[in-house]
Amino acid sequence: MSPVRPVIIVAGIGNGTGTGASTARLFAKEGYRVALVARNPDHLKKLASEIKGAGGEVETFPVPSYSYSDVTANFQKIKDHKWSGSEKAEIRVAVFNAGAGVFKTFLQVTEDDLKIIEETNIKAPFAFSRQAILTFQDNAIDELGRRGTLIFTGATASLRGNTFTSAFAAGKFALRALSQSLSKEFGKQNIHVAHAIIDGGILTDTSVERQPADKQAAYRTNEDARLNPDSIAKSYLYLANQDRSSWTWEIDLRPAHEKW
Amino acid sequence: MSPVRPVIIVAGIGNGTGTGASTARLFAKEGYRVALVARNPDHLKKLASEIKGAGGEVETFPVPSYSYSDVTANFQKIKDHKWSGSEKAEIRVAVFNAGAGVFKTFLQVTEDDLKIIEETNIKAPFAFSRQAILTFQDNAIDELGRRGTLIFTGATASLRGNTFTSAFAAGKFALRALSQSLSKEFGKQNIHVAHAIIDGGILTDTSVERQPADKQAAYRTNEDARLNPDSIAKSYLYLANQDRSSWTWEIDLRPAHEKW
Amino acid sequence: MSPVRPVIIVAGIGNGTGTGASTARLFAKEGYRVALVARNPDHLKKLASEIKGAGGEVETFPVPSYSYSDVTANFQKIKDHKWSGSEKAEIRVAVFNAGAGVFKTFLQVTEDDLKIIEETNIKAPFAFSRQAILTFQDNAIDELGRRGTLIFTGATASLRGNTFTSAFAAGKFALRALSQSLSKEFGKQNIHVAHAIIDGGILTDTSVERQPADKQAAYRTNEDARLNPDSIAKSYLYLANQDRSSWTWEIDLRPAHEKW
Amino acid sequence: MSPVRPVIIVAGIGNGTGTGASTARLFAKEGYRVALVARNPDHLKKLASEIKGAGGEVETFPVPSYSYSDVTANFQKIKDHKWSGSEKAEIRVAVFNAGAGVFKTFLQVTEDDLKIIEETNIKAPFAFSRQAILTFQDNAIDELGRRGTLIFTGATASLRGNTFTSAFAAGKFALRALSQSLSKEFGKQNIHVAHAIIDGGILTDTSVERQPADKQAAYRTNEDARLNPDSIAKSYLYLANQDRSSWTWEIDLRPAHEKW
Repeated sequence: MSPVRPVIIVAGIGNGTGTGASTARLFAKEGYRVALVARNPDHLKKLASEIKGAGGEVETFPVPSYSYSDVTANFQKIKDHKWSGSEKAEIRVAVFNAGAGVFKTFLQVTEDDLKIIEETNIKAPFAFSRQAILTFQDNAIDELGRRGTLIFTGATASLRGNTFTSAFAAGKFALRALSQSLSKEFGKQNIHVAHAIIDGGILTDTSVERQPADKQAAYRTNEDARLNPDSIAKSYLYLANQDRSSWTWEIDLRPAHEKW
Repeated sequence: MSPVRPVIIVAGIGNGTGTGASTARLFAKEGYRVALVARNPDHLKKLASEIKGAGGEVETFPVPSYSYSDVTANFQKIKDHKWSGSEKAEIRVAVFNAGAGVFKTFLQVTEDDLKIIEETNIKAPFAFSRQAILTFQDNAIDELGRRGTLIFTGATASLRGNTFTSAFAAGKFALRALSQSLSKEFGKQNIHVAHAIIDGGILTDTSVERQPADKQAAYRTNEDARLNPDSIAKSYLYLANQDRSSWTWEIDLRPAHEKW
Repeated sequence: MSPVRPVIIVAGIGNGTGTGASTARLFAKEGYRVALVARNPDHLKKLASEIKGAGGEVETFPVPSYSYSDVTANFQKIKDHKWSGSEKAEIRVAVFNAGAGVFKTFLQVTEDDLKIIEETNIKAPFAFSRQAILTFQDNAIDELGRRGTLIFTGATASLRGNTFTSAFAAGKFALRALSQSLSKEFGKQNIHVAHAIIDGGILTDTSVERQPADKQAAYRTNEDARLNPDSIAKSYLYLANQDRSSWTWEIDLRPAHEKW
Repeated sequence: MSPVRPVIIVAGIGNGTGTGASTARLFAKEGYRVALVARNPDHLKKLASEIKGAGGEVETFPVPSYSYSDVTANFQKIKDHKWSGSEKAEIRVAVFNAGAGVFKTFLQVTEDDLKIIEETNIKAPFAFSRQAILTFQDNAIDELGRRGTLIFTGATASLRGNTFTSAFAAGKFALRALSQSLSKEFGKQNIHVAHAIIDGGILTDTSVERQPADKQAAYRTNEDARLNPDSIAKSYLYLANQDRSSWTWEIDLRPAHEKW
């Protein structure tokens, strides 16, 4: 009898061209079942169909909002989901990649912006982490010494506030605090919590469009100038495969030519 | 004709024995008019009466909650208040000292805890800062090169998450990000934003009661072992008096014998 | 015709049971030629013979001291060395793992301690880095977008001074500054500079002996409690294989059960 | 009988127009006896004569070099010096302000540069701190709860390495580690160790001359644009006067309009 294939949850896949999507694709290729979480059902379907087409096992879990209760209920659905040939999921990796790019000077920040920041950086990740930790606590320790991996996607703004990131950085700082607290609290239960500082622009359909028209082609192809989400995904895989003697809490990632 | 006496707003005074209260007392002694903001009207009255008794000018502004709108409306009241012999307040210093001491292991943190954390560390300080910045922008630059001072009270948990501070640190990290962003954005408008890391226990009625009965007297008197809020207040006064050439964003404060 | 097999230089191998030795073994297995640098020729020989026995290609370069000139001259020897079937080395990875564990309270630190700290954390790594950078600049960019990888081994004391690390932390802070400066300066030349924070005890013959006699066996086998140098080596390999779009400057590594 | 007037040692006074000189002037005005340490006897004499002219008590202690032994011997001279009406000095404040501005791209850094960096950032401050700590340990605790104050002058490069600061930052990082270690080790002996991050250009004769000719006048007068050393000195005085319940280890200082 073959061992149970593990499940990865990826929460936050944007429009299917960024870090979350690449992570889903890579872990699917590595044999993980993929539970995709996002608000936009169309983006979910498109990515799921792509992963299935490549031979992966995947299920979508559209979440109505990133409220505490919606995130909690959605996680429960993933826990209850029956995967092929398996009574229940053995969730081994959970990636919290949801975010909200609020880039405004301070006086432009509205109360609604703050609600979004709070939801995506406090309510949602606390709810998500709670379910992930509770789930991992029920897992057996695997041959790498792990019960589970919880990865958070951070940004430059996780480390520094700046003139147009008062709201964004407030959220990302909070998320970093959560991830560090969890790492310290649950390491001793063999649950690995990690935080990635993505210190540069990421190649996505959206980020390409933000470039001037005459620079979009170069931005797409110049691997020195922006992060490739597939490369970020490789780092997440690396983190998920570290054995218990040498775990990373925080890793920074930036393009070779980034000025920092 | 004497110049207008400046106003300091102190938001968050606990039960009147901590940092906010000491700050109010010290600035009153220095000639500031004091606008006291807190949720508990009794604590406000008691502190105000004490400051008046010592010859200070003070007004209380009880705030129903630290929601965005309540904080904003309350600030407006302070701006509209007519002080003795003055048409309007010239608010020069604003101290955001409100906080919520949520110290729990991660799985004990509830959604309600998060709401409190968000309100006191994101909604309230963003609303408060917005009003403070807008107010300061209308001030003239004084002889020290300042239009105004905005001070935030931080904690050890502003710098490090830990096993019982996932929620508390998330909030304090967020507040630190806000203060740093504001410092960078508004320094060039001669508005000084500072952040104090209070890295140790503060002597208050509450903190004394938390000590074992046989250690309370020593805790009260041993100035090596915990921060005296009067000393913290002196640091806030120092920050408010730095001339424009040498401003501090962040200062840490701890007792001489603190293990850190 | 097969492509030239790359060379890794590992400077600092202790007694052959720690991070440097594990790195040498792992990269040898991955097909790298290994240039071993250390002061103790016996340790060098023993490790080289072990690697050869396992089918690796290895050469030892004993360095008389970690003085600037000795390190420089020794590096030149490595550059001039003729490897099997190759005119010259194509050095692609350089690991600076030398260090000096000076753990003393401040008043016990002697001038001689400082000389050791300066030599191993400033003179030697500056000389080593200079040669590595100059060498890498002559390399072609490989398919991962890299001209070379320079990795530094840091420690908890790279981030925090403490009561018994005034000298050690001074050195490790300096080394961290060097690595960060190099990362910022030479990233744009496709040279990858990374820094690993080893935040815990490492399993070596020496560290085992430092344990109480009745705990040595457990320390050897308990992968939750101290870092396995083989796992650190895996991280170094991961860093050396990151493609140009997503490079890490700093990574922390600690055992799952480490209190931090 | 009046109490003994305390002594401040200021090591590093540049050409007498920067932080060290301003610190000496301000503390002299506050009633401290000033022991001036520097390598250039002319600069020492000039500053001493100026301070005397203003009614201060001052003595010069030219140091041949910042080697460990020269710094130690020079400190002993200060300890042995007989001040007016006093058998011996009661040294209460020691400021280590010596430094070496090595700003070069990495490949331009020479072995001699490193020797300078090591001397001014490791050997000299370790020797100076050792003598200061030993001296302070013999002092009685004063009414502020202090046996002594040891202040280090840091810089932006204390926190971040950059493309032209590999050597400078290595030194400043090391100095910061020393100061933090000392703060943690000797706080419990009521010795206060502090570190100031000077995050911007300082107004000195030298820095003015580095400006383009047509901008020198503005640089001299624009207090928003660079630090005034007199203001830095005020911060040092503030640190030296903090009572034992609330000590600062690290403070940052920058001009209001600094971009950071």
